[in-house]
Amino acid sequence: MIDKNQLPEITGKRTVAKSALFNIEQIDLTFSNGEKRQYERMLGSGRGAVLIVPMINKNTMVLVREYCAGTHSYQLGFPKGLIDPGEQAENAANRELKEEIFFGADKLSYVAELMMAPAFFNAKMTVFLAEGLYECKLEGDEPEPLEIVEWPIADYKGLLQQNDFTEARSIAALMLVIDKFRGNHE
Amino acid sequence: MIDKNQLPEITGKRTVAKSALFNIEQIDLTFSNGEKRQYERMLGSGRGAVLIVPMINKNTMVLVREYCAGTHSYQLGFPKGLIDPGEQAENAANRELKEEIFFGADKLSYVAELMMAPAFFNAKMTVFLAEGLYECKLEGDEPEPLEIVEWPIADYKGLLQQNDFTEARSIAALMLVIDKFRGNHE
Repeated sequence: MIDKNQLPEITGKRTVAKSALFNIEQIDLTFSNGEKRQYERMLGSGRGAVLIVPMINKNTMVLVREYCAGTHSYQLGFPKGLIDPGEQAENAANRELKEEIFFGADKLSYVAELMMAPAFFNAKMTVFLAEGLYECKLEGDEPEPLEIVEWPIADYKGLLQQNDFTEARSIAALMLVIDKFRGNHE
Repeated sequence: MIDKNQLPEITGKRTVAKSALFNIEQIDLTFSNGEKRQYERMLGSGRGAVLIVPMINKNTMVLVREYCAGTHSYQLGFPKGLIDPGEQAENAANRELKEEIFFGADKLSYVAELMMAPAFFNAKMTVFLAEGLYECKLEGDEPEPLEIVEWPIADYKGLLQQNDFTEARSIAALMLVIDKFRGNHE
């Protein structure tokens, strides 16, 4: 059994690569059993991000399809974005909804906090369920308009079968919201 | 509506930062509407990864708690790892089980493919459900033994409330397996 208070000690750290967006740090670690390792990790903005499952009515979710450079393909997922400095997560969620699907939300409910690959990143995303949508458009900084896609929540299995709906955080959010609705109806 | 065949054109690319693990590429893009942007993306190994939800019996899952450098904390999640060059995903899944929880699996069922942040990465993970476990230990390259944690699947909501169980891919895998079991019993 690991003593979880016995974190490895970081005995050295240095930036080994840096670009406009990414900062890669190498750290020297000594584990509590004396084992030594060098690991790399990515330093983030620390700003956090939000992802929103918007319900345009009680049966229908709204998703967006947008260009993803990592895969050089269009991918389907829920609206999301970084929290601006000083911004509350709820305000970021409402701003992203207005920029990406041209709706604000009267009601945002907390669903979960998701981390992305904590072995390498410190990237936290707060997931909200958005209800009570009203039309409201903000200009974003997208190079082209996102494709807005409505999907009946009853057909979530059909959504899971789309070969461009594969992002882990969107799938986690979908399944947590499905579970939440199931719980409400049981 | 976006013509999905009309991917932006990559008119230039260059490595802007590189470390032992990471290779960051800057690309020049021209979108179909003429808009130009420079994006950064991370080039991966292209090897793919596996994540396994192991059932030690029909009611109990097995997880591991391990040190994550990105967050400098111990995190709870399902066994996972990279696919070795030339290795089949199923074989990688069985190898990771033997290295991390000291069990092999007679039965591996495909659950899903998950991508991590496709805006920046091209990192694909195949999720398996593992049943029919038998004791079998392989040596891994971990600096310290992983803590092995059994969790009753009926208490998945308790697992979701653990503040060290937050990794998006583990949560997606858990909820997809819950949904699969629900479907089998409906």
